[in-house]
Amino acid sequence: MVAVTLADVRAAHERIRPYVHFTPVFTSRALNELVGAELAFKCENLQRAGSFKLRGALNAVLSLDAASAARGVATHSSGNFGAALALAASIRGIPAYIVVPENAPRIKRAAIDGYGGVVTECAPNVPAREAALDAVVVRTGAHPIHPYDDARIVAGQATATVELLDQAPAVEQIWVPVGGGGLVGGAAVAARGIAPHVRVVAAEPRNADDAQRSLASGRIEPMPNPATIADGLRTPLGTINFAILSTHGVTVELASEAAIVRAMRLMFERMKLVVEPSGAVPLAALLEAEASRKARRIGVLVSGGNVDLDALADLIKTAS
Amino acid sequence: MVAVTLADVRAAHERIRPYVHFTPVFTSRALNELVGAELAFKCENLQRAGSFKLRGALNAVLSLDAASAARGVATHSSGNFGAALALAASIRGIPAYIVVPENAPRIKRAAIDGYGGVVTECAPNVPAREAALDAVVVRTGAHPIHPYDDARIVAGQATATVELLDQAPAVEQIWVPVGGGGLVGGAAVAARGIAPHVRVVAAEPRNADDAQRSLASGRIEPMPNPATIADGLRTPLGTINFAILSTHGVTVELASEAAIVRAMRLMFERMKLVVEPSGAVPLAALLEAEASRKARRIGVLVSGGNVDLDALADLIKTAS
Repeated sequence: MVAVTLADVRAAHERIRPYVHFTPVFTSRALNELVGAELAFKCENLQRAGSFKLRGALNAVLSLDAASAARGVATHSSGNFGAALALAASIRGIPAYIVVPENAPRIKRAAIDGYGGVVTECAPNVPAREAALDAVVVRTGAHPIHPYDDARIVAGQATATVELLDQAPAVEQIWVPVGGGGLVGGAAVAARGIAPHVRVVAAEPRNADDAQRSLASGRIEPMPNPATIADGLRTPLGTINFAILSTHGVTVELASEAAIVRAMRLMFERMKLVVEPSGAVPLAALLEAEASRKARRIGVLVSGGNVDLDALADLIKTAS
Repeated sequence: MVAVTLADVRAAHERIRPYVHFTPVFTSRALNELVGAELAFKCENLQRAGSFKLRGALNAVLSLDAASAARGVATHSSGNFGAALALAASIRGIPAYIVVPENAPRIKRAAIDGYGGVVTECAPNVPAREAALDAVVVRTGAHPIHPYDDARIVAGQATATVELLDQAPAVEQIWVPVGGGGLVGGAAVAARGIAPHVRVVAAEPRNADDAQRSLASGRIEPMPNPATIADGLRTPLGTINFAILSTHGVTVELASEAAIVRAMRLMFERMKLVVEPSGAVPLAALLEAEASRKARRIGVLVSGGNVDLDALADLIKTAS
């Protein structure tokens, strides 16, 4: 196991601070009433490139020595990490090679292009994207960076929780979406180091409950093609994050697809915020959780806002 | 003419400050590039009750002496002012009587109900709503408050500009939507008093260009049923605001309906913010204005975010 320490997180924060937004924490009386708790939403949907992923990507890119950095960085991503890595690389002035499945959403592909990432398309399956990434790395000499199973990434994502604990110091729990687990792993490290009385809760779609099953069985349980609209949470847990969640006593709460759509709509209509399905999962789980599992004051990490308007409208029409 | 002074604005700010959000100012590199200027968006869509209207409503309600206040307040409104007055009255603990046309949007009617406003429906025309309001006032003894043609309202709305000038002190222009003119009238008073070098620009739909025509002809030019999606900007200028705009050298810029939709989509996809059509009009006008009419650093008042998701999706589908 690769340990991630609070010192790593503090160092990451110093490294990335000049380039990331210090995102606001918002509250909503209407949502407090619905959930029965005081909620503090840390709005990483308002982060540069539209998600928390920039924090980890920047920490990894800025940690490279000059010789490695010069050849650029590479990853495979159908989602926010590709855009975040392209932006992080452009901030350092080095190339980013992003392997993207042919069927990736328009808005995510456009974001990678917009930040100057060099896109290689591949068939939408794991062997194809791994082969495509290997070929890119061999051809360019770029440094490959995994979207979440990398200690530099986890330390970077943890900085969102450091800020939240500063902005809303009274929270007793922090609810965080879990896919690969970088954000929630980072949250567990930061909370343990800064405010050990704060419980970290991982929220995932009921239709993609691999984190819950992995923590129950004691080994990573991948799940092929889970049927959830939360496209950012379809990946299995990374090994580093599985170890952190296991040792830090992180528990998992589930959200139905209907609750995810309802949570997106509530954040749209009540908070005037655009949130992608994955980012609405913690609120969705809170709407469905029994009162006994909730605290009085709860932080919520809103992971991202990269959803195009037409897709959002279609999702919500289908659901209602 | 009823003058509104900077002292009135300062007094309003002290009065309402405990009850309103100090809304954030956001920036977007992508929108700066599109417009060719550095934009500072004052986000009153994130204000309580979803628009700047709470500022004026609260100032009016909190200015009443105890005896007048006890009988409540009344207004006619198909839009954000009704919800804002209902919330302001609930904060003071007095009744609010709101006359609403039968065809008002679902979300706006629901907001008035949610804040405990007492709704009276009327036919959707000016004589019917004036008659309904008169009847409510006679029956209840409530104090009638006009949505924008009232010095207390203008002084309250001006506080948004006071905050913006503090949050983004380098702006050279401030672009503000104009309907009845309370927000832009307040902006002109605040800018003249605090930063007289800052130019205030009123932005309105090309299809509802009554403010531009009124300033050109020297008298208020009402416009029956203008065909614009910016439902908050269909009203004629108030007399107080017409006088302020005339004497403070406020100029008008126009926005096409297509630009309004494009601006809403850009704020949704790039800034992750939900903005109602009226609130997107200044950005729309900036997208269409010649470079010579823009400054290098521009403040933008985003007036509100009360649009329901289905309505927004329909608007944008119709337009594309």
